[in-house]
Amino acid sequence: MSEDTIGNRWSESEEQIMEATRRALLQHGYAQLSISRIADELNQSKASLYYHYDSKEDLLQSFLEFTIDQLEANIDTNDEAPNRELEQLVEALLPLQLSDEESQHRAVMVELRSQAVMNDKFREQFTEIDDLIVKRMERIIDRGIDEGVFRNVDSGRVAEHIFATTSGATYNRATTDRTAAVAAVRVSLLSYINNELIQG
Amino acid sequence: MSEDTIGNRWSESEEQIMEATRRALLQHGYAQLSISRIADELNQSKASLYYHYDSKEDLLQSFLEFTIDQLEANIDTNDEAPNRELEQLVEALLPLQLSDEESQHRAVMVELRSQAVMNDKFREQFTEIDDLIVKRMERIIDRGIDEGVFRNVDSGRVAEHIFATTSGATYNRATTDRTAAVAAVRVSLLSYINNELIQG
Repeated sequence: MSEDTIGNRWSESEEQIMEATRRALLQHGYAQLSISRIADELNQSKASLYYHYDSKEDLLQSFLEFTIDQLEANIDTNDEAPNRELEQLVEALLPLQLSDEESQHRAVMVELRSQAVMNDKFREQFTEIDDLIVKRMERIIDRGIDEGVFRNVDSGRVAEHIFATTSGATYNRATTDRTAAVAAVRVSLLSYINNELIQG
Repeated sequence: MSEDTIGNRWSESEEQIMEATRRALLQHGYAQLSISRIADELNQSKASLYYHYDSKEDLLQSFLEFTIDQLEANIDTNDEAPNRELEQLVEALLPLQLSDEESQHRAVMVELRSQAVMNDKFREQFTEIDDLIVKRMERIIDRGIDEGVFRNVDSGRVAEHIFATTSGATYNRATTDRTAAVAAVRVSLLSYINNELIQG
């Protein structure tokens, strides 16, 4: 099993297909992606992929499920203090600098996500992704409240606010040239978290 | 001239084409939009549209320019108190209830905006749209500071935060079924504005 294994739900060959899909998406973007290009990444025939997946959309839905499973596997709370853990999550969702690959990955996710406007299956998957992230934030805030580190706020509401802010900044970064916006949003968001949650 | 006129930059026939584009987009969505469908809305021939526009992308770029000009024409500050004006802007960006048409309009804008990931011309236009809205927020906040109603905050930073939050909530509403999120974000955002800006 590879180090990246996310349990026994995905066979090794399925994982290879998903990783090839990720590479092909990063290289070609959503519009130019094809089963044929994914097959090229795998050094396999198109026919072998069509054996598993009916269409590009079908394969991309599996890819999103794979992404969800990876997110679930990596979303365990850690041993940091709640305020530090929340900051780390915001920093991970909204890094100031992006490598070319991270930047491309986020751009592709915006393209995939726009499919959710019309496609119910994509929509369900992005609903699940957002739920996972917001619930994780909520758990961190609840832990902070329990430990007496955070004020007794409505954790669900604060989590929705933080998540919407990071989503918007990420989305706007991928679709505009307003390069200074992310840093401004992050400073303001971390200050909001501090003012809203930290007692004193 | 129609009541909706936005100055002499757009001829009456161009305005008609833009309104037909809007109707066709709302009805068919981005992927199914075609010059032919816009021509149908206008009761004109395809050829008459191809005389003005080379392609669907070309026409949509004009449509975005038209949207920007409409936004500029409607973005004058009003006579409300700054805190009320800022609240009204947040409520306009993030309504709790959407009519079917508004919902469809926002969905289509997400589809159009995803084109900005790869298309520089679309990207420039969404950069301009975001700049317009953030600058308007900044002006309201600056006016509140000048009038002594708001604290002496970094208005640019607060405006970026508010805008990212409304963008994220709008984007997530169009691409997920997390129906309760918008109300939670709005309550939290209005409370943030109050805590961050209002003196006392």
